[in-house]
Amino acid sequence: MNEAKIDENERIDDLQLKGLKIIQNKDGFCYGIDSVLLSDFAKKIKDGSSVLDLGAGNGILGLLLCGKIDLKKMVGIEIQEDVTKLAQRSIMLNRLEKKYKIINGDIKNIENLVEKESFDAVVSNPPYKKKNSGITNESKTKLIARHEIMCNIDDVIKAAFYALKEKGSLYIIHRPERIVDLLESMRKNRIEPKIIKFIQPKEGKKPTMVMVKGTKYGNSFVEVEKPLIVYNQDGTYTDEIKIIYGINKGE
Amino acid sequence: MNEAKIDENERIDDLQLKGLKIIQNKDGFCYGIDSVLLSDFAKKIKDGSSVLDLGAGNGILGLLLCGKIDLKKMVGIEIQEDVTKLAQRSIMLNRLEKKYKIINGDIKNIENLVEKESFDAVVSNPPYKKKNSGITNESKTKLIARHEIMCNIDDVIKAAFYALKEKGSLYIIHRPERIVDLLESMRKNRIEPKIIKFIQPKEGKKPTMVMVKGTKYGNSFVEVEKPLIVYNQDGTYTDEIKIIYGINKGE
Repeated sequence: MNEAKIDENERIDDLQLKGLKIIQNKDGFCYGIDSVLLSDFAKKIKDGSSVLDLGAGNGILGLLLCGKIDLKKMVGIEIQEDVTKLAQRSIMLNRLEKKYKIINGDIKNIENLVEKESFDAVVSNPPYKKKNSGITNESKTKLIARHEIMCNIDDVIKAAFYALKEKGSLYIIHRPERIVDLLESMRKNRIEPKIIKFIQPKEGKKPTMVMVKGTKYGNSFVEVEKPLIVYNQDGTYTDEIKIIYGINKGE
Repeated sequence: MNEAKIDENERIDDLQLKGLKIIQNKDGFCYGIDSVLLSDFAKKIKDGSSVLDLGAGNGILGLLLCGKIDLKKMVGIEIQEDVTKLAQRSIMLNRLEKKYKIINGDIKNIENLVEKESFDAVVSNPPYKKKNSGITNESKTKLIARHEIMCNIDDVIKAAFYALKEKGSLYIIHRPERIVDLLESMRKNRIEPKIIKFIQPKEGKKPTMVMVKGTKYGNSFVEVEKPLIVYNQDGTYTDEIKIIYGINKGE
C-alpha cells in the first residue's frame, strides 16, 4: 500500500486492525475511544450486511467496521465538506473505495441521499452536547462534531428509521446525561431500545458514555448489560479494553 | 414498647433502625433489600416533609423513612385490605400512628384519597413484572405485589404527578428491563428523571435493579450515578451496603 500525501496539519494513524490507517486533521476532530468501543459494540452486525454511518466524520467508524466485519456495503453521511474529503482520502488509502462510500450531505435530507429501508444496520456517534451548551470556543469543525448545531438526537433517530430495513438495528453512543432524550426519541420513532451498555472510566466511578442498540419495530424489553470498565484502579487498561483494542492479540 | 399479638403465620422483624419493628406475613410478600436501598436513595428528602408511598404493602418504606428522616407526615396507599391492616398494626407497634397513615385504596382513584399537590415527595416500590408475564403460581397477595395486575408504571407516575407539589420529587425503584417504560412515562407525565442509579449484585455483573429520582416540572438533564454494588467478590456485603444497613455503625 502506498503512503498517502498528507498536509502539514495532518497525520496518519495506524488503527491496529488489519493494517488499516486513517488520515486525521490535527486541528480537527480526531477519533477517540468512543468510536473504538462503538465499533466493538456493533460487531454483532453480520457478514454481508449493508451499514450506514450517520455523521461519519473522518470515516473512522466505517473503517473499523470494515476491519471487523465482511460488510457488503458501508455508507457514511457527513455534512462537512472538508471532513468528507478527508474521509474519502482515508478510504482510498485503505483501498476500500469499492465497498465504502462517503456522501457529503445533511442527514435531515436523507430521503434524497440513500434508498429507504435499504440498510441492515445504522451506526452513529453523534454530537453529544445540546446547542449553545457549555463553552464553544472551538474550531467550526469541532463545534459541529460535538454540539447539536447541524442535527440533534431526533434527527439522527428519524434518519435511522428511514434507512433501516424492518428488524434492522441501530448502534449509537451518547453521553449518559442524554439517555432520557435518546431512549424517548428511539421509542417514539419505533426503534425500540434492546441493549443498553454504560461505559465507566473505572469501577466505582459514574459512567461517562452509554451505548444503545435499538431494533426497528422491536418489542419493549431492554437488557442493561454489565458496564464496560476502561481502566483498572492503577490506571492500566482493563482486560476487556485490551481485547477490544487488540492488545496482546498479536494482530 | 409492648410486644404485639401476632398470628401463627406472622413474624416480627427488627428493622435495625432506632428500634423499629415490622409485622410480616410469612406466606405474603416480605420486604427485601429493594425497600432498604430505596429508603436510602430517598434519604435526601428533607426533615419536615410530607411523603406519600404509592403501593405501600406492609408499610416497610414508610417505617424506614420515619426512622431516617423527621417527617411531618407519612401516608401510604395500599390496595389489598389484609396487607393494609398488617401495615396499620406495624405502625401502631412502632407508635407512629400520629405521623403515619395507611389508606386502603386504589392509586388509580387517587383524587378521592389524598389532596392534590400536597406532598413534597413520593416513593414507590411498584410491581416489577408485566401482567401475564412469567410464572404466576403465587398467592394472590404476592401476585398483586409483583405483577402489574392492579396498576402499571403509568398509573404510578400519574398518581405521583397528582400528589406532588411543584418541584417535588419521586423516588422509585424498578427492574432495569423496564427502564425505557419508566423513563418514558416519567417524561410524558412531566416528572423529569434527574438521577438514575443502577444496583449490581457484584462488580462485573449486570444490574438487577434501578432507582430513579424525578422532579415534577424539572428540566431535562439526568445524572447517571455510579452503580451501587451489593456484594464483594467473596460474597460479603460491600462497605456501602454495610453503611446503608447500619452494620458497624453502632445503631
